Amino acid sequence: MHFSSKVTQMLNIKLPIIQAGMAGSTTPELVASVSNSGGLGTIGAGYFNSEKLDSEITYIQELTDLPFAVNLFVPSEQLYIPENVEHMNAWLKPYRKALNLEEPVIDISEEQQFNESVDMVIEKGVPVVSFTFGIPNQNIIKKLKARQITVIGTATSVEEAKANESAGMDAIIAQGSEAGGHRGSFTVTSGDHTPLIGTMSLVPQIVDNVSIPVIAAGGIMDGRGVVASMVLGAEAVQMGTAFLTSEESGASALYKNAIQQSKETDTVITKVFTGKPARGIDNEFIHKMEGYDDDIPDYPIQNQLTKNIRKTAADLGNEQWTHLWSGQSPRLSQPSSASELIADIIQETKRILNE
Amino acid sequence: MHFSSKVTQMLNIKLPIIQAGMAGSTTPELVASVSNSGGLGTIGAGYFNSEKLDSEITYIQELTDLPFAVNLFVPSEQLYIPENVEHMNAWLKPYRKALNLEEPVIDISEEQQFNESVDMVIEKGVPVVSFTFGIPNQNIIKKLKARQITVIGTATSVEEAKANESAGMDAIIAQGSEAGGHRGSFTVTSGDHTPLIGTMSLVPQIVDNVSIPVIAAGGIMDGRGVVASMVLGAEAVQMGTAFLTSEESGASALYKNAIQQSKETDTVITKVFTGKPARGIDNEFIHKMEGYDDDIPDYPIQNQLTKNIRKTAADLGNEQWTHLWSGQSPRLSQPSSASELIADIIQETKRILNE
Repeated sequence: MHFSSKVTQMLNIKLPIIQAGMAGSTTPELVASVSNSGGLGTIGAGYFNSEKLDSEITYIQELTDLPFAVNLFVPSEQLYIPENVEHMNAWLKPYRKALNLEEPVIDISEEQQFNESVDMVIEKGVPVVSFTFGIPNQNIIKKLKARQITVIGTATSVEEAKANESAGMDAIIAQGSEAGGHRGSFTVTSGDHTPLIGTMSLVPQIVDNVSIPVIAAGGIMDGRGVVASMVLGAEAVQMGTAFLTSEESGASALYKNAIQQSKETDTVITKVFTGKPARGIDNEFIHKMEGYDDDIPDYPIQNQLTKNIRKTAADLGNEQWTHLWSGQSPRLSQPSSASELIADIIQETKRILNE
Repeated sequence: MHFSSKVTQMLNIKLPIIQAGMAGSTTPELVASVSNSGGLGTIGAGYFNSEKLDSEITYIQELTDLPFAVNLFVPSEQLYIPENVEHMNAWLKPYRKALNLEEPVIDISEEQQFNESVDMVIEKGVPVVSFTFGIPNQNIIKKLKARQITVIGTATSVEEAKANESAGMDAIIAQGSEAGGHRGSFTVTSGDHTPLIGTMSLVPQIVDNVSIPVIAAGGIMDGRGVVASMVLGAEAVQMGTAFLTSEESGASALYKNAIQQSKETDTVITKVFTGKPARGIDNEFIHKMEGYDDDIPDYPIQNQLTKNIRKTAADLGNEQWTHLWSGQSPRLSQPSSASELIADIIQETKRILNE
């Protein structure tokens, strides 16, 4: 085994390590640090408008000449049910009152924001775009590929991986159930659940069913996880939680600390924060909102309804009222810098391969 | 990397491959075939009385001189709530009527049966016992260890692994969420859930927190899974579903076929068949009984209430009314013999290690 793979060649990087586009927690410093260390940094641009994306890309291009990626959330059909939003606002009232916050105005310009971000990626010459929550339309895929931009999709099942391949994606992130943050799922299984397949099962089954390279994600925190993923047939890994607690990450001290104090059994999958299922550390907000699960407005509506509450609670040091995305391996998290984390992975990989 | 490990030395076997004790589906031929191929076969004796266990052990000892194991279900406190049993019998009435079955008489002699099985293992000189659903009392552990019998516990979280180590277990099976059949859990996380940690996350976190050897389980089906598990720090693997579809397995053709036709997204965790959470292929019985989830009698009561229905339905070729335990990697299942499966793993491991 060696570091060079189909993915490192495709992306023109040295190491098969991709930092996940953790919307809300990436910084230009983190992205550049990962890329300068030989991996691929990713701007988590899921919540950005194109101006914000423009300034982040510009800043990163000052910090590195090496490739990096932008991660975008593919808009999905959403139901705006005024009654549900009204109910949700009533349920959220005590939180807003306690934090002295106004009811937000809902803005559903997701599609436009997405299209503008795609254009911005092209304009700024970003070499890689990864997608979460589905597959963009063919116009967008063709437009990106025509500029030699590498497009990477996300799949949580074999069916989703095949759909990505058919749509022309250059590679697929296979997101196992261990992964923290949003599930990338865009299909449902029986009983209306989103797929929750462990990385050990998901990676080889996707590898066997597509021809494009597979990038393993979910529970990978160190050299052991990287080598194990490559053994399962992945051509690279994507790591989120491992980079979230790093020095350069934009996560707050409260958030990083919560992960470092957590056990592997502390996370749950919940839609209460954003309207899309995501894995985070269980807390009071999740418990209180669990009863309303069926009435939760779709993403991005719920995200906008709870955003200020989460932000303000976190600023006040209240970890019970904010999202604390984490994968299932918080015991393996480290407070070191992204470059130290990558150096540790290289060293551990060499040790494993020499055994 | 090589095949010799702390577990192969401890168990006096050649390959770090353990066939899981799949209660209801192991046969003497399967157990002996795995052991004769260099792994460790296991009698799934969870539902056996000591007479049945006696005859199985005797038969296996005729087929092999090599070590094999017995897997036992540790009795747990159970609530017999007559009202719940009455309700369940009412819900099950249409199934019994359709299949022409009587209401069964409930027998709660679990503890006695377990103690007699432990004595039988000692009497017959079986070298290894593994436990599911908890940790037996110190008298039993000490009695087994005094006869140089190796004792192996099952853990689905770091906490459960530490409890097994403290109790004196010689090794621990780390059962990831991908695993088919019963969850070995004996603790609950917040929200009264049993732990569901993916193998990629569970194995390294347990390895880092105990000193005894760890055996990885969950989603492991071939050489890729075996090597990946060893890279994560496991000293051996335990495979269930992979052996369930093998020629020597006691699973019916209906059952084997259901697994081979399944996708990775087809399984769910359910208590409706036995009263304990287990992973199996979703079907009509699970859907229909889902609504009664809170009222389901504890194991072994629910197991006894549904046993005849499942058995008779399966005999009649009805896969909708029987349990179809499977892990999350059914696409990787093979109809070959257990010895061919093991030969394939050896070959694939060599290929991976030479790359």
